[in-house]
Amino acid sequence: MESVPILLAEDEALLLLDFEQALAEAGFSVIAVSSGRKAIALLNAGDASIQGIVTDIRFREPPDGWNVARVAREIDPEIPVVYVSGDSAPDWASKGVPNSIMLEKPFAMAQLVTAISQLLNGRSSGTTAP
Amino acid sequence: MESVPILLAEDEALLLLDFEQALAEAGFSVIAVSSGRKAIALLNAGDASIQGIVTDIRFREPPDGWNVARVAREIDPEIPVVYVSGDSAPDWASKGVPNSIMLEKPFAMAQLVTAISQLLNGRSSGTTAP
Amino acid sequence: MESVPILLAEDEALLLLDFEQALAEAGFSVIAVSSGRKAIALLNAGDASIQGIVTDIRFREPPDGWNVARVAREIDPEIPVVYVSGDSAPDWASKGVPNSIMLEKPFAMAQLVTAISQLLNGRSSGTTAP
Amino acid sequence: MESVPILLAEDEALLLLDFEQALAEAGFSVIAVSSGRKAIALLNAGDASIQGIVTDIRFREPPDGWNVARVAREIDPEIPVVYVSGDSAPDWASKGVPNSIMLEKPFAMAQLVTAISQLLNGRSSGTTAP
Amino acid sequence: MESVPILLAEDEALLLLDFEQALAEAGFSVIAVSSGRKAIALLNAGDASIQGIVTDIRFREPPDGWNVARVAREIDPEIPVVYVSGDSAPDWASKGVPNSIMLEKPFAMAQLVTAISQLLNGRSSGTTAP
Amino acid sequence: MESVPILLAEDEALLLLDFEQALAEAGFSVIAVSSGRKAIALLNAGDASIQGIVTDIRFREPPDGWNVARVAREIDPEIPVVYVSGDSAPDWASKGVPNSIMLEKPFAMAQLVTAISQLLNGRSSGTTAP
Repeated sequence: MESVPILLAEDEALLLLDFEQALAEAGFSVIAVSSGRKAIALLNAGDASIQGIVTDIRFREPPDGWNVARVAREIDPEIPVVYVSGDSAPDWASKGVPNSIMLEKPFAMAQLVTAISQLLNGRSSGTTAP
Repeated sequence: MESVPILLAEDEALLLLDFEQALAEAGFSVIAVSSGRKAIALLNAGDASIQGIVTDIRFREPPDGWNVARVAREIDPEIPVVYVSGDSAPDWASKGVPNSIMLEKPFAMAQLVTAISQLLNGRSSGTTAP
Repeated sequence: MESVPILLAEDEALLLLDFEQALAEAGFSVIAVSSGRKAIALLNAGDASIQGIVTDIRFREPPDGWNVARVAREIDPEIPVVYVSGDSAPDWASKGVPNSIMLEKPFAMAQLVTAISQLLNGRSSGTTAP
Repeated sequence: MESVPILLAEDEALLLLDFEQALAEAGFSVIAVSSGRKAIALLNAGDASIQGIVTDIRFREPPDGWNVARVAREIDPEIPVVYVSGDSAPDWASKGVPNSIMLEKPFAMAQLVTAISQLLNGRSSGTTAP
Repeated sequence: MESVPILLAEDEALLLLDFEQALAEAGFSVIAVSSGRKAIALLNAGDASIQGIVTDIRFREPPDGWNVARVAREIDPEIPVVYVSGDSAPDWASKGVPNSIMLEKPFAMAQLVTAISQLLNGRSSGTTAP
Repeated sequence: MESVPILLAEDEALLLLDFEQALAEAGFSVIAVSSGRKAIALLNAGDASIQGIVTDIRFREPPDGWNVARVAREIDPEIPVVYVSGDSAPDWASKGVPNSIMLEKPFAMAQLVTAISQLLNGRSSGTTAP
């Protein structure tokens, strides 16, 4: 099988490496970027192969992860979105997109892999949860 | 029992009456307004008794229903949100808040009552779905 | 608002009347037929306005309700399906379509209205459950 | 169709009448009792026709509604349970049974009807949510 | 603990090895077969220990994976079913069984493991989702 | 990132080691105890860092795992609870807490990791399922 490309946006280098490794071991192919700006540039470049988004909320400069997710959903209304954040979790209820998952740091790598897998599995089944 | 106040924002007068009647017959107490601006003013007035939001998306002037829902969720992160719209349903995936329901017009009154009931029931049980 | 047409297939005349009345009172517009054959003919006639299916399983002659649902889903993969049956409920796990609801007779009219409303609401929200 | 019997236990007479009427109008047949003791006696009498439980939490004397639900689930592990309570809602997470719904008073009658319908529909479909 | 036997039917040898390895590393014991015919033979042999099914849709000769799942569900109405397919995913809505998951190739191994785990966990809890 | 502490209570030493290893490999930090009594002592000591509970049901002496979960939920009403048991699974419907998962032994380690991850992910997203 070909791989399943996931767009990962995280500006803390060590976390980006951890997340990338966990997702790669789970069988995903990771396109890693270090800012929301680069993530949106990639999404707008129209790479139809991206199957899911994992994004931090706060980057050193705007746009933030809430924006990354909105742009991704404008392009593909059903794309799975996982937010990872230390301090922005309380804003998820007002700023997150529907059918997304917020992982509050710290979390275990299995939570990240389960979150993106669950959303992808729901998508192919025509059901997206939660 | 006291009643359960629902904030209803809709600028088409006939629809507002229909929705109000359906919700009242279902046992809710309806606070009806005809614009997003009035809805947000009411939310900001801090009436803690409002238990859920039913909002149209497009009003004659801004703010729109997406904004109404975000303001409501900033005040109460778990408040149930039902959007009703004729042509904005496709934007729900990028502009809606998590754990909300989008009803695309036309819909049956039972769908509106079921939607707000389901979200309220999920809330009191500590689970909000979908 | 225009109405939301639901296709109802039931060959017991009294039940068909009960279901039709309950759905109409809930705000749906009901297209009632008395056999699986007529239901499939209507679906194949390509009436794009049908938004949901409520079907009995056993009719006096084939096709049965399992077939009605499969034909409906071939035409519209996301159409809500509610089965109603007295004795075929145990076959739902092997013969039903995904994201459908089986109501075992006897059931209360509120269960029928809640079932179709829940599935319709899930559909417009991009999530279909269960 | 025959009716769907629901056991309703509530010791405030006015509420019991309200709930009974709402459930009856929804198409259920209600077996109403005014204490947890009577509810458990009925359950232990082995009336296999009871399809769901709606119970208050606090009665003038023990047993309470948490006990009613546990006894009902020992007899039928999949029976739908809806709790209604003014002040015991926070204890649901530790004292409630799985796949039950807690309605915190005040609530609208539509919430009660939706709650029991949703659980019953989930049951006949082999899925119980939430 | 003893192991949890999963029946895996896949006729592409390399994929079968990949899936088998992923499931074994996840702690499952895999009974691998290369055709729908062999899968159904095993199911009909009445091995009550099989706890879940992972099946391709198209095999070189009939029966197909839709049939495998139906036979499995006739024997055990609650058995978890995961379909894996490259080109048959769009037929899931009309040909799949309820409470199953369709994984469209390509997918990551973590998606397969999450899918079967989620369905098994739902089963033991009396709830199967989606 | 710091780690996510999970309280694990299991009195079969070999299983405790297996579970501990599976959870640690998944990225959790495990606080392992061999009895319900020790689990409750730890919970009552008020260690706010515990993020989830995995508990056996039967221990050599009381309290049992049903009690462990109830105490945990009294302290934190949203804490994820996974029960693991060989013979007490049928009692989950009457003795388990809401929004918990029962894993019946034998199960695969991936099921344990998926169960706790799913509940944790639901929690941070404001939705707990099932």
